[in-house]
Amino acid sequence: MHNNIPKGSLLAAAIVAVAFSLQPAQAASGKTMAEVLAAAKPSDWRPIDPANTLYLELSSGRVIIELAPQFAPQHADNVRALVRENYFDGLAITRVQDNFVVQWSDPTNTRQPRNAKKTLPAEFTRPAKGLSFTALPDVDAYAAQTGFVDGFPAARDGDTAWAVHCYGVLGVGRDNDANSGGGTELYVVIGHAPRQLDRNITVLGRVVQGIELLSALPRGPAPMGMYEKPERNVPIASIRLAADVPESQRVKLEALRTDTPTFMDLIESRRNRRDEWYKVPAGRIDVCNVPLPVRVAN
Amino acid sequence: MHNNIPKGSLLAAAIVAVAFSLQPAQAASGKTMAEVLAAAKPSDWRPIDPANTLYLELSSGRVIIELAPQFAPQHADNVRALVRENYFDGLAITRVQDNFVVQWSDPTNTRQPRNAKKTLPAEFTRPAKGLSFTALPDVDAYAAQTGFVDGFPAARDGDTAWAVHCYGVLGVGRDNDANSGGGTELYVVIGHAPRQLDRNITVLGRVVQGIELLSALPRGPAPMGMYEKPERNVPIASIRLAADVPESQRVKLEALRTDTPTFMDLIESRRNRRDEWYKVPAGRIDVCNVPLPVRVAN
Repeated sequence: MHNNIPKGSLLAAAIVAVAFSLQPAQAASGKTMAEVLAAAKPSDWRPIDPANTLYLELSSGRVIIELAPQFAPQHADNVRALVRENYFDGLAITRVQDNFVVQWSDPTNTRQPRNAKKTLPAEFTRPAKGLSFTALPDVDAYAAQTGFVDGFPAARDGDTAWAVHCYGVLGVGRDNDANSGGGTELYVVIGHAPRQLDRNITVLGRVVQGIELLSALPRGPAPMGMYEKPERNVPIASIRLAADVPESQRVKLEALRTDTPTFMDLIESRRNRRDEWYKVPAGRIDVCNVPLPVRVAN
Repeated sequence: MHNNIPKGSLLAAAIVAVAFSLQPAQAASGKTMAEVLAAAKPSDWRPIDPANTLYLELSSGRVIIELAPQFAPQHADNVRALVRENYFDGLAITRVQDNFVVQWSDPTNTRQPRNAKKTLPAEFTRPAKGLSFTALPDVDAYAAQTGFVDGFPAARDGDTAWAVHCYGVLGVGRDNDANSGGGTELYVVIGHAPRQLDRNITVLGRVVQGIELLSALPRGPAPMGMYEKPERNVPIASIRLAADVPESQRVKLEALRTDTPTFMDLIESRRNRRDEWYKVPAGRIDVCNVPLPVRVAN
């Protein structure tokens, strides 16, 4: 949440500081993000549905992913089916490409789904109609309009909408055929938003906790960040649906709703930083720079 | 260079494939980036000046940084002076914040420069005049215009220009006072471009080799990614100017010039991907998604 660059001597102060900018550009609310979150009501938060939550279990810990069936209903169903037949257990992260993606798959390329499907028709875009779309006021390099849908960064152009590739987003690997993905190979963005992938691949969700277990992995030395030597692969103990895990082993997470006045205040607090460190508020923001707060429920 | 998301079975083919898109949007040159680079002339490359090159030596290897005196002449001079009095030797990386920055400093906050300065007037922007600016044709979320100056991502607005915060960019930590930086604390971007920092802090260069030695470091558990416990800090063996290192220990690097028709072809090859994997070429690009190729000289 804090991302300025104080020198060490100021760090302790900066973490707690709530200072107002001296710049003329004033946010509607005039609040910092910390103030916006402190003022949020319980109803500004939504529980993350265990039926849409994946636990990717590594020896280093648990990565928690929220699925986005709004954008990829068939792929979400199929990944749930793959998970329920333990398809991913014992597979591995085989690719870590710096400033791009972490990808996992079957290193032996032999495992077949039992009941789940291996491939599905592409879900690169969907109709804009029916989505609750909170639009950003700022221009975007790639899309006519960007914003947020149910906690996911998104874009739309006329009647068409799609989930966009920001840091931490989960997608479905595919071959050259647009309909060759299905969810047996998945990737997570760990670098600058690779927006050229938008509308070229199925976006399936985003990491809501534990991204650092993926983003800090050693980069693969081979082309495209492949680990190359099987002994370097990072084993996946399992992937489970949170709804299938005993309640005592779940992490109850809440996400800040993105369809509320509170979230609009949060956007504004980031378009124009109020803390004293900033001298020139940007006055605008890129969709992938808007924080999407997640917290552990009480 | 390769950043699509093939499934494992296609990876070997994808690495060597040079296929033309079936999409109607055609690039001026119609080339892939690989073809653009293969066709580049020796004069399309420039040697990276050893007098503007820093070697950050870690136990894991060498991170190579090109300084940008075009944007921060006083800070570049001062960092060279700090390096020449061995200011950084034995200091440490003390902060690794996921999707933001790696930062190094004096963990004891006691070391004083001898002849170099501790603080300098800010160099957040400079006059646009006098720069060779290769403009991108696309809109940007943050700046009136973006492009490239001597191999660095940059922006301009009227008479003012500045270096922008893309992945791998090096900047100068400061306290709340705009003139409180000087180069004793430096940071490198390891996440989605934090463009809100533009014009708020002095940009000093960018990493041209070894970024993965920084970006894959364990994230700090404390607020702002601080390592908190001194034993977790990553020691810096030394920082040296390449020009001060015996020639036999230097790495001779060349960067693709950004003021040539070849670089315009490269930009176009990335605005509209030609390889078969892409179904919908973006038709545009963000300044931080344009590759800035660097190679070891023959």
